[in-house]
Amino acid sequence: MAGKAPQSLHAKQGENIFAKNPKVSAELLALTYGAFVHRLIKDESSTSGTGENAEEVNAILDKMGYNIGQRIIDEFFAKAPSQGLCRDLNDTAKVIGEQGFKMFLGVTAEVANFDVEAKAFSLIIRENPLADFVILPSPYANKLWYSNILCGVIRGALEMVNMKVAAYFRKDILRGHDCTELRVELKEIVKDKYEEDDDDK
Amino acid sequence: MAGKAPQSLHAKQGENIFAKNPKVSAELLALTYGAFVHRLIKDESSTSGTGENAEEVNAILDKMGYNIGQRIIDEFFAKAPSQGLCRDLNDTAKVIGEQGFKMFLGVTAEVANFDVEAKAFSLIIRENPLADFVILPSPYANKLWYSNILCGVIRGALEMVNMKVAAYFRKDILRGHDCTELRVELKEIVKDKYEEDDDDK
Repeated sequence: MAGKAPQSLHAKQGENIFAKNPKVSAELLALTYGAFVHRLIKDESSTSGTGENAEEVNAILDKMGYNIGQRIIDEFFAKAPSQGLCRDLNDTAKVIGEQGFKMFLGVTAEVANFDVEAKAFSLIIRENPLADFVILPSPYANKLWYSNILCGVIRGALEMVNMKVAAYFRKDILRGHDCTELRVELKEIVKDKYEEDDDDK
Repeated sequence: MAGKAPQSLHAKQGENIFAKNPKVSAELLALTYGAFVHRLIKDESSTSGTGENAEEVNAILDKMGYNIGQRIIDEFFAKAPSQGLCRDLNDTAKVIGEQGFKMFLGVTAEVANFDVEAKAFSLIIRENPLADFVILPSPYANKLWYSNILCGVIRGALEMVNMKVAAYFRKDILRGHDCTELRVELKEIVKDKYEEDDDDK
């Protein structure tokens, strides 16, 4: 669908940083993540395995991601010290999809579907290292957002740079959709108490 | 301590395979694994957070690893098709520590401490990608084997090639030991029903 654009600066930067830092096999992450999600499905509450606990599992994954996001943002700035704060949400979207995804997951996500007010965007994840090998058990096929941890990571990381967002999956190839789409909606930019009054947007 | 030996064939093979296959950042694995272990500590049973559920968490991690191991062995042979079955436990140890560790975790583990009967060995893990950033909460400091999933992986993988082993941590830098030592003891070699009678060891 999308034409092959020349690699952006963010993508290049992400790739350089990814190349320099310690890595593990993507399969190991996929298998480890899968084993933990499996356990959450099986062992959360009395409705385990029936699909009824899917909402709960989604929430747990999001919460875990949130905690990871709050730490990963430090790693991000430690590795990309030249990265300043983003100017607008378009910039934020690209830094996440092209640089952040590359630095940690080794793949990029495509930025798409900005709304008219430029307050929300989607990340289209063509390759999802978390979801290799995965087939959702049928009671979960329309209920579980398997990679929901990613929503939490984005929400947690952005909160650390004063952006409150809602992040959720709209589509997932695992559910039979045509692509995997993660939606990010800006809710509020929290003012730093120490911020100078030069907010001239 | 250990002199820098020239890289073995297994290590080279592991490195080549690792280089060719998709990777993610080691930090992401560490943070993800950490978030899940944290959750197990907090949410398993009524003794959550007190350290009393450490044994239970160790067992869960081992069990998860076992399931991963049973799948990862297929990945291993798919990626290293020239790898035949090992001739003896010494060979097995090297394939695990030098090739298997490299292929999936991006690091090697040193084989050491073979017992006199050559029925048990240790893997000394100098760099443990799972344990980056980790400080054990004090009620768990002498009870939790944080990386216990690795024991399960080895046990599960070896069972698929007819070797029943016990695998457990003896030491962990996270507990203040001088190194991280994973012990593997061969319990039984299960005969294939279809195996020819040419067992001439």
